[in-house]
Amino acid sequence: MDAITAHRSSALLTDRYELTMLQAALRSGAAHRRSVFEVFTRRLPNGRRYGVLAGTGRVLDAVEAFRFTTPQLDWLADERVVDEDTLRFLADYRFTGDIHGYPEGEVYFPGSPVLTVEGSFAEAVILETVILSILNYDSAIAAAASRMSSAAGERPVIEMGARRAHELAAVSAARAAYVAGFSATSDLEAGYTYGIPTRGTAAHAFTLVHDTERDAFTAQIDSMGRGTTLLVDTYDLTEAVSTAVEVAGPGLGAVRIDSGDLTLLAHRVRRQLDELGAHDTRILVTSDLDEYAIAALAAAPVDGYGVGTQLVTGSGHPTCAMVYKLVARASGPDGELTPVAKRSAGGKTSIGGRKWAARRPDADGVAEAEVVGTGPMPAELEPHLLQVPLVSKGEVVGREPLEAARERHLRARAALPLSATQLSRGEPVIATELHGLTPERSL
Amino acid sequence: MDAITAHRSSALLTDRYELTMLQAALRSGAAHRRSVFEVFTRRLPNGRRYGVLAGTGRVLDAVEAFRFTTPQLDWLADERVVDEDTLRFLADYRFTGDIHGYPEGEVYFPGSPVLTVEGSFAEAVILETVILSILNYDSAIAAAASRMSSAAGERPVIEMGARRAHELAAVSAARAAYVAGFSATSDLEAGYTYGIPTRGTAAHAFTLVHDTERDAFTAQIDSMGRGTTLLVDTYDLTEAVSTAVEVAGPGLGAVRIDSGDLTLLAHRVRRQLDELGAHDTRILVTSDLDEYAIAALAAAPVDGYGVGTQLVTGSGHPTCAMVYKLVARASGPDGELTPVAKRSAGGKTSIGGRKWAARRPDADGVAEAEVVGTGPMPAELEPHLLQVPLVSKGEVVGREPLEAARERHLRARAALPLSATQLSRGEPVIATELHGLTPERSL
Repeated sequence: MDAITAHRSSALLTDRYELTMLQAALRSGAAHRRSVFEVFTRRLPNGRRYGVLAGTGRVLDAVEAFRFTTPQLDWLADERVVDEDTLRFLADYRFTGDIHGYPEGEVYFPGSPVLTVEGSFAEAVILETVILSILNYDSAIAAAASRMSSAAGERPVIEMGARRAHELAAVSAARAAYVAGFSATSDLEAGYTYGIPTRGTAAHAFTLVHDTERDAFTAQIDSMGRGTTLLVDTYDLTEAVSTAVEVAGPGLGAVRIDSGDLTLLAHRVRRQLDELGAHDTRILVTSDLDEYAIAALAAAPVDGYGVGTQLVTGSGHPTCAMVYKLVARASGPDGELTPVAKRSAGGKTSIGGRKWAARRPDADGVAEAEVVGTGPMPAELEPHLLQVPLVSKGEVVGREPLEAARERHLRARAALPLSATQLSRGEPVIATELHGLTPERSL
Repeated sequence: MDAITAHRSSALLTDRYELTMLQAALRSGAAHRRSVFEVFTRRLPNGRRYGVLAGTGRVLDAVEAFRFTTPQLDWLADERVVDEDTLRFLADYRFTGDIHGYPEGEVYFPGSPVLTVEGSFAEAVILETVILSILNYDSAIAAAASRMSSAAGERPVIEMGARRAHELAAVSAARAAYVAGFSATSDLEAGYTYGIPTRGTAAHAFTLVHDTERDAFTAQIDSMGRGTTLLVDTYDLTEAVSTAVEVAGPGLGAVRIDSGDLTLLAHRVRRQLDELGAHDTRILVTSDLDEYAIAALAAAPVDGYGVGTQLVTGSGHPTCAMVYKLVARASGPDGELTPVAKRSAGGKTSIGGRKWAARRPDADGVAEAEVVGTGPMPAELEPHLLQVPLVSKGEVVGREPLEAARERHLRARAALPLSATQLSRGEPVIATELHGLTPERSL
C-alpha cells in the first residue's frame, strides 16, 4: 500500500455528529452498551437486477487506520468539536470488536446484511461514515462494471475513466471494476497500489504534435513496437488505417476508434485491415461506452472496449443507498441483545435484530432466494450462509488477494438466474425472503 | 495540507498512455516542441444554465506534487511501462511552464478556456489526467451546490454527503460545495484540511441505543447544551417535539426532521414549537434534498437544509465533460505556434489556437456574452478578461484563500442574467461568441 491509500489516519473521514454522539453517550453511559450495526440497502437502483459488493478490502484498511493522530486531536480540541473526556477516549481508540460480512465480489439484494459491526456503541458508531463511503462508492462502480463485463462476453473491457472521476476515487473505481470483471485499467496508481494490469494507447494530442500522422505513427511504432495500438481517427479514418499498416506492416497490434458510429466504422476498418493483410490487427473502441453500447456492438468486429465516464459514474447510479443502522443493543457491555429500529412514519423504517443471510439454491444450483432472518436458521441453509468473519476482536482476519474477490464475483454472477444479466429494467433477479421477521413495511 | 490531500506524489494519478506518448515523443523529438493545451467543455450538462469552476487550488497542489518517487520509478521499470530514457526524464520531472486559467469559483460556459497549460509537449502532456480528474469532479459538485445554495436563498445549506461518496472525494466535495455557497460541512477531514466550518446533529442510532427517547435527549442536552439540534423522527414526531422542549426548555437550539413530507411536517412542528413557547428553536430538514426540493420548501418554516446524496453526485451530473486538448504547438522549443485540432468526423472536433476569453457586460453591468477568441482582442474587452496567471515558469503564483473563491463565485453568479438561477432546463444563460474563429462545427 502507498501513502495515497494507506494515508496515515482514516479517523477524520467521519461526520462530526459521530463524535458528538460519542461524547453524549460517554456521559450517559450508553457508550459502553454492546451494540450491533448492520449495513444494508432498502432497494437496488431503479431497474437493476443485482448489486455487487465491493470495497470490503478497503474497509479493512480503513478500520485498521482509524487512529487519531496528535495533530488531529489538537484540531478537535481547538475547534471544540468534543470535550476532554472524549478526546482521551479518541486518543486511545482502536476498534476491538467483530465484523462479519459478505465477502468482496459477492452479489447482494435489498435487505442483504452485507456488513455487521459488533462492539461497544462507542467503538462501532464512529466507523459509520468511512465504512459507508467506501462501500457505497465501490459497490456502485462494481455494479456498473459487472453489467458491462457481462455485456462484453469474452472480449476484454479496459477501465479508462480516471479523468472523469475524483483523482483518488478513480483508483478505487479501477479496483472495483477489476473485481467485477474488467481486465485492466489505464490508471497507473491502481496498478501501483493494487497490482491491477495497466493498459494504454495514444491520444489525439500525440498525432497533432507531430507534423503528419505518418510521423506520429512512425514515432509510436519505433518506440513501442508493432504490437502497439494506433489511434486512427484524428484526421481521415481510411487514410489513417492505410498509413498505419504501411508503417507497422500487417503485424500491427491494434487500432483504436474513438468517435463516430462505432458499429459502422468497426465493420469498415475490419474490411480494410483484412484487405491489407492485417488479419490479426485488433480493433479497440472507446467513446462514451456503457453496457448498452457494448451490447449493441456484440455483432460488430470489435476486439475490446475501453470504458470511461459511464464506468466511474456508475452508469447512471453513482452511489448506492447503503445505510449503517443500529439493529440491536444490550443494556451494558455484555448481556442479551434487544432488537431496535426506527419506527416513525416516512418510509425509512428498518428491521431490528442481528440478521443471518443465506442464498438458497434450487435443485439445479441456481440461486432462487436471498433468505434473511434473525434467530435460529433452518439447518438446510447452513451450507449457503453468506457472511464470513472479517475482523475478530479487532484483528483483521478477512484480508484476501484481489483476484479472490474477482473470481468470487464471476462465480456468484454465474449462479444467478439467467435473467440477471439482461440489461432491461426489472425487479431484483431473486426475491429477499424474511425468515421469522415481521417488517413494519416492506423492504 | 494534510497527508490525505497532499499525498507525497500525484505523479501516478495518470493514465498509462501519457507516459508511453512521452516515451515515443522523446524518441521522435516532438517532446521538446513548445505546446499549448486547453481545458474546456463542449457543452454544459443537459439543461444547466451555467457551469462553476472549482478545484483550481487543488490543481495547483497536484502540479507541485507531480514528482516521481524512487519506488514509483522502480515500479514503472519493473512493469516495463516505459524505457530507460523516459525513466530518466521522469526522475528529473518538474513542471517548468506556465498555467493561466479562470480563477476558482468563476462561472463558465461551453468553449470557455478554463485552464491553459503551456510548456514543452513532454512536460504538459503528462499533466492531463490529474488536472481533468480534479476539475471534472470538483466543478460537477460546485455546479450542483450553486443551484442548491441559490434555491435556499438566505437559509444556510450544510453539506452532509460524505457517506454517499468515495471517502476522499467527499473531502473535495465539501470544499467545492463551500466555494459554491454552502455554509458548512459534516465532514471533519474537510474542516481539518481546508478550514471549512463543520456542523452536525445526531443520528437515529443515538436515540435507539438509549432506553427511551427522553433518556437520549437528556444525554445530548447534558453533554452538548441546549443549543444542540435534536433529531425528532425516530418514533413519534409530535411526542418527540414535546419531550425535546420539556427536556431542553424553550431555549432548545433546533430540531431535525429526516423523513416524511417535509413541508407538512415543518408546518406542524413549527406550530407545536410556537405553542410550547420555543419560538427561537430552529427547524433543520434533511432527507434526499436536491435543489428542487429546497426550492419547494421556500414557503415552509424551515431554517436550514442538510444535503447529502444529491450534492456529492452532482444532482444528476456527477462529472463534467471537460477535455484537455492540444490546440497549438511550435516546431521546436521556441518559435511560432501553429494551431492544431482534430478534424475527423464524429463530433469531437475542437478549435485550434490559444484562446483568450472575456465576459462582456451590458450597459447595466449584467453579463451578456462569453467572448472567446484567438489573435488580437478588441480593446473594450480588456477590462473583462477572465484568465489569470496561476503558474509562472513552474512557480505557483495563483494560490488564494478558499474564502476568495467563495466570494468570487457569489459575485460572478450575481452578475449573470436573472434567469441563470431558474431551476428549469434551458440553454446556457449567455451565449459563447467566437471572435475571429471559424469552428468546423459549433460548440
